[in-house]
Amino acid sequence: MDKLIECIDALKSPIVVGLDPTLEMIPESLQEEMFEKFGKTPAAVAEMFLAFNREIIDSVSDIVPAVKPQIAMYEKYGLDGVAAYIKTAEYASSKGLFVIGDIKRGDISSTAEAYAAHLSGTTIGGEYFDLWHEDAITVNPYLGSDGIAPFVTAATEADKSIFVLVKTSNPSSSELQDLTVNQDENGNYADSKTEPSPCIHHGATLYRAVATLVDKWGADQIGRYGYSRVGAVVGATHRDVGAELRKALPHTFFLVPGYGAQGATAEDLLGFFDKDGRGCIVNSSRGIIAAWRKKDGLSVGEAARAAAIMMRDELAHVIGRT
Amino acid sequence: MDKLIECIDALKSPIVVGLDPTLEMIPESLQEEMFEKFGKTPAAVAEMFLAFNREIIDSVSDIVPAVKPQIAMYEKYGLDGVAAYIKTAEYASSKGLFVIGDIKRGDISSTAEAYAAHLSGTTIGGEYFDLWHEDAITVNPYLGSDGIAPFVTAATEADKSIFVLVKTSNPSSSELQDLTVNQDENGNYADSKTEPSPCIHHGATLYRAVATLVDKWGADQIGRYGYSRVGAVVGATHRDVGAELRKALPHTFFLVPGYGAQGATAEDLLGFFDKDGRGCIVNSSRGIIAAWRKKDGLSVGEAARAAAIMMRDELAHVIGRT
Repeated sequence: MDKLIECIDALKSPIVVGLDPTLEMIPESLQEEMFEKFGKTPAAVAEMFLAFNREIIDSVSDIVPAVKPQIAMYEKYGLDGVAAYIKTAEYASSKGLFVIGDIKRGDISSTAEAYAAHLSGTTIGGEYFDLWHEDAITVNPYLGSDGIAPFVTAATEADKSIFVLVKTSNPSSSELQDLTVNQDENGNYADSKTEPSPCIHHGATLYRAVATLVDKWGADQIGRYGYSRVGAVVGATHRDVGAELRKALPHTFFLVPGYGAQGATAEDLLGFFDKDGRGCIVNSSRGIIAAWRKKDGLSVGEAARAAAIMMRDELAHVIGRT
Repeated sequence: MDKLIECIDALKSPIVVGLDPTLEMIPESLQEEMFEKFGKTPAAVAEMFLAFNREIIDSVSDIVPAVKPQIAMYEKYGLDGVAAYIKTAEYASSKGLFVIGDIKRGDISSTAEAYAAHLSGTTIGGEYFDLWHEDAITVNPYLGSDGIAPFVTAATEADKSIFVLVKTSNPSSSELQDLTVNQDENGNYADSKTEPSPCIHHGATLYRAVATLVDKWGADQIGRYGYSRVGAVVGATHRDVGAELRKALPHTFFLVPGYGAQGATAEDLLGFFDKDGRGCIVNSSRGIIAAWRKKDGLSVGEAARAAAIMMRDELAHVIGRT
């Protein structure tokens, strides 16, 4: 996680811009231009997304250290969309931005190994290909350690990072992630093979059990700022959870979605940071990339830049108090 | 799930062939041909995968009703790989096969809506595009109902299906999926906001909590054979779990990975079927698509066909006893 932390420190800006475009966010003139050139096709939308993203990247690359394209928005437009995702990551990377691929992949070990090419690249007949241009990716923990290990290995070899979903920002994250799970006398989480026992510690949540695994997965990969290369996704919409996990996971860097459009404010984030003002990077998507729709007369890039500066300053105010 | 069930019934073959190619599985002559044409590039590997998959599809399409390409194997080769995934799905579909996209996507609601285009296709300026050619996809439940709802909506509108990960086939599936969770007096799963109470029913597993949600998500989408369009992934490697869930989820169709290379036998599957011999489709990947490596003198297609016939007959023997 060192590279990301250094990028954040350099700009004093723990912000990642979520590059999650939708057709509705694209200014009419750009829509018309691309529909004219490519017809009403996925290729046209892909070209719009790429042009839109480039404008945002160019406008914020000296204000924010990182971008997080959400691959779903691109998969919606099929292969052309995926091409725009890859080109966006490549362009952002060429502008010195740290690229977090929000892909939430996860599978059994042999399959996770294939997905890990997002980080490791692919070698064919001795020739190396970096095909996805991501510096970090998000992954889903539901399959357990053998599904995560290939990502950790790839991240280690390529000096990259992963962020494991721990507590997500959406309302129904509580349905499974907040279920209370049982622990035995030694604090080990109890599975169906554990002997029935008086229910000592039956109040831990599933997300805490996942957090314990995240801590373990990253334990021998701790960098020079005390954070491992196995980070966690912790939604900004859960103020108390952020503070709880910051304390429980001193070596885990957080990727924090849910700021702005999803309802969380800078104030809600105080507990996510460590005493040095580090420990997390906060995502904003619509609040930055769609800011132009609320600011008469500003271009996509100008509005994104203004919104990013405002967010940076709001967070600085909070971090000043950690 | 009706379409899939009818395909299975027609061939008396509850088998899905996992199209999960690796470079090692490609015969040397095909490797040489494509490396010659396209150089040692991802494009060459993508062309190999497509030719390999087509040979298998042509050889088994009258023996098995469905294929399940695993998108990770294709993402490993970047955009060219994804193109081969899409072309594989399209080709299989054109041959009358039911295509289960093993993509294990899952995210918050607005993002899941974008992923749901895998099922719903995309409409641009009134023009409809089926970009992924999948009849069903696998999804990950960790984010809860609001992350699944868009997939259910899209599946319903497009008359397609989803399979939610419940209990996966890998060894460390136990780490989270088997954790015991708590229920209150009424059988509701307890979250961290539930009042502490004497630990009634503290032995249910997380996968049972997920199973309960799957049942609920599919409850108003039950087809003419009694199965809903919201299926579950239940690994063949957990014999007892299959029988337990078959009983608990009478309206949930199972996609069952783990047969063959992962260790499960036909005998292990008895409990996954209902009394009519329906209720699940069993995946085999390496056991069919890499069969040629163990059968001297047979082509990829011939060996795959022989392996599929053998698997069909083994399963028929078991189903005969349900």
